[in-house]
Amino acid sequence: MNHQQIREELVHLHRELIRWGLVIWTAGNVSQRVAGEDLFLIKPSGVSYDDLTPESMVVCDLDGNLVEGDLSPSSDTAAHAYVYKHRPDVGGVVHTHSTYATAWAARGVPIPCALTMMADEFGGEIPIGPFALIGDDSIGRGIVETLQNHRSPAVLMRSHGPFTIGKNAKAAVKAAVMLEDVARTVHIAQQGGPVEPVDKASIDRLYDRYQNVYGQN
Amino acid sequence: MNHQQIREELVHLHRELIRWGLVIWTAGNVSQRVAGEDLFLIKPSGVSYDDLTPESMVVCDLDGNLVEGDLSPSSDTAAHAYVYKHRPDVGGVVHTHSTYATAWAARGVPIPCALTMMADEFGGEIPIGPFALIGDDSIGRGIVETLQNHRSPAVLMRSHGPFTIGKNAKAAVKAAVMLEDVARTVHIAQQGGPVEPVDKASIDRLYDRYQNVYGQN
Amino acid sequence: MNHQQIREELVHLHRELIRWGLVIWTAGNVSQRVAGEDLFLIKPSGVSYDDLTPESMVVCDLDGNLVEGDLSPSSDTAAHAYVYKHRPDVGGVVHTHSTYATAWAARGVPIPCALTMMADEFGGEIPIGPFALIGDDSIGRGIVETLQNHRSPAVLMRSHGPFTIGKNAKAAVKAAVMLEDVARTVHIAQQGGPVEPVDKASIDRLYDRYQNVYGQN
Amino acid sequence: MNHQQIREELVHLHRELIRWGLVIWTAGNVSQRVAGEDLFLIKPSGVSYDDLTPESMVVCDLDGNLVEGDLSPSSDTAAHAYVYKHRPDVGGVVHTHSTYATAWAARGVPIPCALTMMADEFGGEIPIGPFALIGDDSIGRGIVETLQNHRSPAVLMRSHGPFTIGKNAKAAVKAAVMLEDVARTVHIAQQGGPVEPVDKASIDRLYDRYQNVYGQN
Repeated sequence: MNHQQIREELVHLHRELIRWGLVIWTAGNVSQRVAGEDLFLIKPSGVSYDDLTPESMVVCDLDGNLVEGDLSPSSDTAAHAYVYKHRPDVGGVVHTHSTYATAWAARGVPIPCALTMMADEFGGEIPIGPFALIGDDSIGRGIVETLQNHRSPAVLMRSHGPFTIGKNAKAAVKAAVMLEDVARTVHIAQQGGPVEPVDKASIDRLYDRYQNVYGQN
Repeated sequence: MNHQQIREELVHLHRELIRWGLVIWTAGNVSQRVAGEDLFLIKPSGVSYDDLTPESMVVCDLDGNLVEGDLSPSSDTAAHAYVYKHRPDVGGVVHTHSTYATAWAARGVPIPCALTMMADEFGGEIPIGPFALIGDDSIGRGIVETLQNHRSPAVLMRSHGPFTIGKNAKAAVKAAVMLEDVARTVHIAQQGGPVEPVDKASIDRLYDRYQNVYGQN
Repeated sequence: MNHQQIREELVHLHRELIRWGLVIWTAGNVSQRVAGEDLFLIKPSGVSYDDLTPESMVVCDLDGNLVEGDLSPSSDTAAHAYVYKHRPDVGGVVHTHSTYATAWAARGVPIPCALTMMADEFGGEIPIGPFALIGDDSIGRGIVETLQNHRSPAVLMRSHGPFTIGKNAKAAVKAAVMLEDVARTVHIAQQGGPVEPVDKASIDRLYDRYQNVYGQN
Repeated sequence: MNHQQIREELVHLHRELIRWGLVIWTAGNVSQRVAGEDLFLIKPSGVSYDDLTPESMVVCDLDGNLVEGDLSPSSDTAAHAYVYKHRPDVGGVVHTHSTYATAWAARGVPIPCALTMMADEFGGEIPIGPFALIGDDSIGRGIVETLQNHRSPAVLMRSHGPFTIGKNAKAAVKAAVMLEDVARTVHIAQQGGPVEPVDKASIDRLYDRYQNVYGQN
């Protein structure tokens, strides 16, 4: 994708956050790396979802500096930049405060892998990242360090909310949508009584199949 | 219905899954048997609900082999095929990961028949099927074996999610919608305190009446 | 309102049931008495909300017999008829299986009056009616007998769901919408810890004010 | 903003209450002060959200008297007026019965500051105001007295529901939307187990940054 295509994709994907109920007001942000350049595009800070246009997206470098755009970048830009800089395989990053994922983050408890759908997409439990304040690279570092020990493309930053990654922005949004779905389902299941996790061998078989067979070639 | 009518019906019914909040992203699938042929039509794998068209639906035989269509069939096709092959009375099958039904499935606890609406549609409790991995006929066999002991058109596959059946795809979608509704209501009721099931004689009277009198002739 | 105006009002009010999330599929029904005639209009049985038109509504007498219309009346017609026959002050009746109200009905526990908004509209707790099977006048009798001891326009029929009444169909729909809202809020409040009811003297002051001062003259 | 601009803004902002699920039927109201005049505009009482137009908004003075308009003002007008009279810094007031915020109000328990997003917007816990009946200035006084001890722009009036304030109506609506979001998230988190609040020093740093850096200049 060139810059213009990424701009249009980001408008579409921010609307998906609204559609699936993951964000309110101006919260939440999606970014995508520009292939072959040390740049990514991201939502501007504090702009209403109704007012997002391809032109309003801003271009940043991998230190989080604004390179192109009339608006200030998302206040979470430093975290996105850190992830792109330290994870060359990552092409998209999403941050939301979606309700159930954030509730697990508030308690600091990982989501156990209790559903086949979780095994498919996350390959195991969804881990908790450290409590980290905005303003330096501690959020980005927390994301990268936590995810390097898990197959999960999602991390629940303690007392804050989820970040998800993917090969592009669409894959990271998909992970954010599925995360909230499994966070809600496992929470509700546990409210009714004990929930057993799926066994490790089955998780491995499901994860392998989903990552390699699901969808269209 | 001929093939073309089924294709259009399936587009409509997949939209009903979205409308009633039973599925996210590309998850979930609806199929319908072709009367008088050993064939059924089903959603292609991993295609967005926005992009589903009558033409995108694929035709499979009762062993789950692709017979007609440019796209790969749903990854749950083998389970649908098994049901059609072993239950000649079934004309439609639906699979979702709807939240509350899946939460009961995660715990492995049947939903007790505690509402007159459950007696009407399900004729008793909604049973749990075995834990089964995708990839062979174990999901299909689990559905068929579990449902042969119940009047319920819905089964909650352990740690996975619900499958529903019906005389056609519309009836199976109706069962999926009502399943999620009663799964949610009974869960919430139990969170507040003990819930008594409806007595067996009343269930029988309600089920008989609803199956034979409700609706238009 | 004449018959035609009531037909159009009923189409609009059934859409309100969908809009506020009180019903799924073809469940739920609204009726309105014809002033000056021993008749009421009600939804036909098992018809999709999308397909409801003014012409599809059917006219019944106060014994629940079909007087005019091509379709079978709602399967709850006998209950509506009983209420109109025995409560001449009632001009509208609504029945839903809305989630939280039905969850209280499943437990058989009245909703305590713990919110000023409940005092306003319901004037006290929302009572539980008896378990009653469809098919004779026992549901209608249960509604009328329970409500004669309460200011509440809503009754939760045991293991079944809510019925609401009003001076016309719109008022009964308003009561159904507010019922689900307070049923949800008080349930959630109780999940978090003890909830104290509003004292009787305050309930009386709030109820009196709301019934006489709120809205436009 | 002149009167006409405020009228249009209020129509838009009432629609935001519906969009974010904070109100049902005719409940809830938004008002905005007229800069440089001892007046504010507010929703008329008991009017459907579908029927709200710029012209239907009414103008009141800071004692809550109707100054201009054909309709009766919102039944909560006295509370809004009291706030404007005693808090010259406040330019907008919102009242809803949004579900989770009202559930905390029903229990009379403040929402602990357990999320970075709460620290950002509310600067600490969200406090409980006194139980107060409509009809005199006790609701307005309860709001003002409770908020003077907190950075929070939201107060949960006991057994009643939330009021939020802001520099204008839009800021107060934003606070109402974020309030319901954090009320829901913290409630759900606590249902799953113990939730630790964010430490005071981190709250102060987050609050300071969000109030001064977030968004566009």
